[in-house]
Amino acid sequence: MVKTDKIPVAVLGATGSVGQKFISLLSNHPWFEVKMVAASEKSTGKKYKDAVNWILNEPIPESIGNLEVKNCEPDGNISLAFSGLDSKVAGGVEDAFANAGYTVVSNSKNHRMDEYVPLLVPEINPEHLQVIKKQNYKNNGCIITNPNCSVIGLVLALKPLLDNFGIESINVVTMQAISGAGYPGVSSLDIIDNVIPYIGGGEEEKVETEPNKIFGSFNGNGIKNLDIKISAQCNRVPVVDGHTECIQVKLKKKTSLTYIIECWNSFTGGLQEYNLPTAPLKPVYYFAESNYPQPRLHRNIDKGMAVSVGRLREDKFFDFKFTILSHNTMRGAAGGALLCAELMRVTGNLKE
Amino acid sequence: MVKTDKIPVAVLGATGSVGQKFISLLSNHPWFEVKMVAASEKSTGKKYKDAVNWILNEPIPESIGNLEVKNCEPDGNISLAFSGLDSKVAGGVEDAFANAGYTVVSNSKNHRMDEYVPLLVPEINPEHLQVIKKQNYKNNGCIITNPNCSVIGLVLALKPLLDNFGIESINVVTMQAISGAGYPGVSSLDIIDNVIPYIGGGEEEKVETEPNKIFGSFNGNGIKNLDIKISAQCNRVPVVDGHTECIQVKLKKKTSLTYIIECWNSFTGGLQEYNLPTAPLKPVYYFAESNYPQPRLHRNIDKGMAVSVGRLREDKFFDFKFTILSHNTMRGAAGGALLCAELMRVTGNLKE
Amino acid sequence: MVKTDKIPVAVLGATGSVGQKFISLLSNHPWFEVKMVAASEKSTGKKYKDAVNWILNEPIPESIGNLEVKNCEPDGNISLAFSGLDSKVAGGVEDAFANAGYTVVSNSKNHRMDEYVPLLVPEINPEHLQVIKKQNYKNNGCIITNPNCSVIGLVLALKPLLDNFGIESINVVTMQAISGAGYPGVSSLDIIDNVIPYIGGGEEEKVETEPNKIFGSFNGNGIKNLDIKISAQCNRVPVVDGHTECIQVKLKKKTSLTYIIECWNSFTGGLQEYNLPTAPLKPVYYFAESNYPQPRLHRNIDKGMAVSVGRLREDKFFDFKFTILSHNTMRGAAGGALLCAELMRVTGNLKE
Amino acid sequence: MVKTDKIPVAVLGATGSVGQKFISLLSNHPWFEVKMVAASEKSTGKKYKDAVNWILNEPIPESIGNLEVKNCEPDGNISLAFSGLDSKVAGGVEDAFANAGYTVVSNSKNHRMDEYVPLLVPEINPEHLQVIKKQNYKNNGCIITNPNCSVIGLVLALKPLLDNFGIESINVVTMQAISGAGYPGVSSLDIIDNVIPYIGGGEEEKVETEPNKIFGSFNGNGIKNLDIKISAQCNRVPVVDGHTECIQVKLKKKTSLTYIIECWNSFTGGLQEYNLPTAPLKPVYYFAESNYPQPRLHRNIDKGMAVSVGRLREDKFFDFKFTILSHNTMRGAAGGALLCAELMRVTGNLKE
Repeated sequence: MVKTDKIPVAVLGATGSVGQKFISLLSNHPWFEVKMVAASEKSTGKKYKDAVNWILNEPIPESIGNLEVKNCEPDGNISLAFSGLDSKVAGGVEDAFANAGYTVVSNSKNHRMDEYVPLLVPEINPEHLQVIKKQNYKNNGCIITNPNCSVIGLVLALKPLLDNFGIESINVVTMQAISGAGYPGVSSLDIIDNVIPYIGGGEEEKVETEPNKIFGSFNGNGIKNLDIKISAQCNRVPVVDGHTECIQVKLKKKTSLTYIIECWNSFTGGLQEYNLPTAPLKPVYYFAESNYPQPRLHRNIDKGMAVSVGRLREDKFFDFKFTILSHNTMRGAAGGALLCAELMRVTGNLKE
Repeated sequence: MVKTDKIPVAVLGATGSVGQKFISLLSNHPWFEVKMVAASEKSTGKKYKDAVNWILNEPIPESIGNLEVKNCEPDGNISLAFSGLDSKVAGGVEDAFANAGYTVVSNSKNHRMDEYVPLLVPEINPEHLQVIKKQNYKNNGCIITNPNCSVIGLVLALKPLLDNFGIESINVVTMQAISGAGYPGVSSLDIIDNVIPYIGGGEEEKVETEPNKIFGSFNGNGIKNLDIKISAQCNRVPVVDGHTECIQVKLKKKTSLTYIIECWNSFTGGLQEYNLPTAPLKPVYYFAESNYPQPRLHRNIDKGMAVSVGRLREDKFFDFKFTILSHNTMRGAAGGALLCAELMRVTGNLKE
Repeated sequence: MVKTDKIPVAVLGATGSVGQKFISLLSNHPWFEVKMVAASEKSTGKKYKDAVNWILNEPIPESIGNLEVKNCEPDGNISLAFSGLDSKVAGGVEDAFANAGYTVVSNSKNHRMDEYVPLLVPEINPEHLQVIKKQNYKNNGCIITNPNCSVIGLVLALKPLLDNFGIESINVVTMQAISGAGYPGVSSLDIIDNVIPYIGGGEEEKVETEPNKIFGSFNGNGIKNLDIKISAQCNRVPVVDGHTECIQVKLKKKTSLTYIIECWNSFTGGLQEYNLPTAPLKPVYYFAESNYPQPRLHRNIDKGMAVSVGRLREDKFFDFKFTILSHNTMRGAAGGALLCAELMRVTGNLKE
Repeated sequence: MVKTDKIPVAVLGATGSVGQKFISLLSNHPWFEVKMVAASEKSTGKKYKDAVNWILNEPIPESIGNLEVKNCEPDGNISLAFSGLDSKVAGGVEDAFANAGYTVVSNSKNHRMDEYVPLLVPEINPEHLQVIKKQNYKNNGCIITNPNCSVIGLVLALKPLLDNFGIESINVVTMQAISGAGYPGVSSLDIIDNVIPYIGGGEEEKVETEPNKIFGSFNGNGIKNLDIKISAQCNRVPVVDGHTECIQVKLKKKTSLTYIIECWNSFTGGLQEYNLPTAPLKPVYYFAESNYPQPRLHRNIDKGMAVSVGRLREDKFFDFKFTILSHNTMRGAAGGALLCAELMRVTGNLKE
């Protein structure tokens, strides 16, 4: 491998579906370079390309395909790790890497609600990064997390409304893609010509709690969660990628359809100055077409890093209702985590 | 054709998707016998089996396959017609048949909200049949209608709650099957690996209005609609048959999860005494499994005439939330209309 | 359980996808009654309904749902077992049951090509049953098998051609349903919006060899296989049930399209005299429509026990080409095995 | 619009599914610029973005969205037209444009088999372009065509075999994507959970004839077709994009699996020197994985312009069998036509 000045990174859970997406996104990254791929015992010792059951439609990056898969144990020469680990093991492994001095950027749920762990959405709560100083990991290690794949589109779409009008309550019904369940994940017999009105692992609870942490304020000491009331119903549908969500929202101030759309259209997320490689040009795209957004048409908008919104109309119970769509494995997983790491670098929160 | 004592019936719009379902259900019906199949001009004069693009997985009934397709004009020897006509033409054609003395049982939306037209659900509002006396059609003709395919499951599941606790408000998000759009209906390019967050033809409005008529009371003069507040969001998903709906409901009296389930389990719908051939054994099936009901597993329960319910839990905004599933072309269209006609017969509302 | 005169049977591998189909088909069977459900260790001791992840769209038969799941070990009071075991364990378990005196009717591949084990298709080779006398199992036990799910439709469609014209060679390309892979089987990420041009477990080899045994002749001593040359290419497609196959065939005698269709239409399979509960009325249905047969429309024809055939035309390399469709879990698995047992009973090959 | 030195082009049938792909591919093309969008009467006079029912997942190019849709009549200022017209009207319209001096590059079938019309595959038969001199259109206009979407992958994969070993006969079974039928094309009710074993419009005939013209030789006077015997069976499967084909081939010379793979890997197609913007880096990709190629994983390889090949093995009837996959709307339609125009430009066959 040619010597570069890129920051060496490890991918934990590299053979899983989120791990693969990390590998793919990092393969041409201008700042980061995969130097270590770690996975469970049955893969260690093999070349990555032989250990992985590759499910993405872009090919395995050649340089990474020949890396030897390692155990999920910290290695002294790298200080940044992306974790796509299964939640059954993520907690302990991520702790170990953090204690070894790593900055762990995790897509797993285990540490998301930990008091001093930021649940980071760069366009929404970059100031939450300050809370990592309160973490007690040895060797200056730390953990940051990105939200659940059905939460990220929701909070991006709601942030402009929160800023402009305040939010009292949110009602959500999701129609989630199969890739959100990993691989092999959902059996084809369970989902072709079918809907499963339930997603395990506490999906609805995540949707009902994570937004209040993300929207919370950093008070110098810790993150004070908001207290928006949220009710969620989560469904699995036969869509490969892209979570669609029907949202109803009650605001604190009165406003109009037109003004809300203006707020979405003018929302920048504040990342433009940083020129982050993975940041979307715009975090929110509003569509006026009555039958938009749709997963197959809009999931890849702006590299899959933005949320698409449509069908805004008034609601009888809440003030407004609308539909959103975001890419669950890009913005909702690996892409979102990568953006977090990029923000950390430009804000001086990453060891180099 | 062998002489029988069955009541001769016509099927209007017989080549369409609802018409085909009528044909199929009527082919072995103990009381009714298809004597006339009517469709648009391009089909008239042909044998039914040559005119139809049959899309059902049961074969074309042989006796009906050889009938000549007629124009949609009343014929003197028949007095009962089932209408699966497209709403673009249904209004006028159904009027013409009613004025010719027919009892028209229609699955089309055109006359559903007419003042003196019952929007009939036999288990819910059989007394609404009395309102047909107020209709002004000549020759003692009349029109009755059955509800929209995304409304029927909703009202069946809610009827026991309405009776026991009263209903203040309903929030619905639907995930509707492609067969609800007729044939050719939804293009495969629009729905494979996709969700369409919109259904045309005023679907959401129907869901928000029809239940109040169905639940309305007959006061001797007409039907007085209820005034439950309803908000609906309708989506199309890649499922062949079976509409799934996430429902939230606010009741007028307090109750418990257990008691609601008891109400569903003990709900009979009152049709048992009549022994109607198409009636379900039970109108509502509650499932305790956390991931039920599902369209592929439960749409055919009780001949596709019952609604399946699951996932009852408390809700933060409304009192309870749960998921329902009903077969949109059986209970939600032809089967539902057939049950209406059966009820009319046993209650003396049908000429023989 | 009420005392009946039905023959008690065991279902081995009862919680798997083929096992479930056995349970479902046997629940109302006039001759057989499930008295034992056996599965792997993780299920034993539980009630069947608690051990099984039920994937069929008909409900779990109540009487069987409450049976306790047993180990896959012979039990003295039953002498007929249906095996839907995974091929990893089927070989030994089936041997054990046979040695305990059971008649084992197996859907697994393990013993299919054993010298003295009939690969039975009741309409084709009932005389092969005589070979079981040569089996060496203790206590008069024996094993009979039914063919691979992609073979059964092929041999049913070809039998009338073999009888009338002789067959020299067969070329097959299959498009197989996901249910053929069992449960959880094919990951939805592997098959939605996709084709997999390969089926593991030696699928193509089975298609290339099993027909020659099925079509073989019993010479008093054993089964002499035919030597038709067969080439197969097997694909998995996003269809729930029903294997579609494009077939080319070279015959030994010249014939015409018309005469072949007549042969199909007049083929009876010779089972009518026995009145077997699971036998199709006709083993082969030919369709003249240019776009038939189709899995969703025709898989359930004649209880899913017949093969549908269409698109017969002349071919440049072989003499004729056509398309077939058969239900892989009905005729191709549990239904086919059940028919074998029924034939055994009426031909005196079953202990009662 | 900024003045550029790009060649102005018209897109005929611009609102159809192939037309949309043309628009999308041309929007950033370094040599061509869309100056005219033409469609049927119901669209003319509207802005393109208002006339089109856009079905691609990349957005409508802004500059083109605002063009006014014109009638399909030649306009004096443009001399290159891409035709994605429906075959019902393509014949006459393309003639009219050719007679007006246009170079018409057509994806429609109408003129493909015309004596002096090249059926052009730039990597295979660039010398066929010379035949356009024999065309009799006025004003130096001409028509060239690209092959049917199920033929292009076949001929690209077979060209190296033809060159090295000669081909005697080809047997093909296709599993074709829904996008090949245009929009609205295949009804979702016809294809979800289904296979249609037939494709109208003479699909099988095209597969059996077009390769012999493509592989034909230009003898100074005209194109002399080859006479490879080809048998085709065409099926529609529930895949959005990407035609999969099971191919058997009999060669004129003996060879080995290894040598064939070498021929594929070393096949360049001879376009590298031209640096055509739409040309693939390599026309053929061979995969050693037993379950490759797959439409969802490989259709976009090399911009969707290459054919993926896998599962090469020996065959009992023909010499070899293997599976191919190519993108039907990219290489098989708009992308392929665009590559033809690019080749014409660099070889001096295009007016500028």
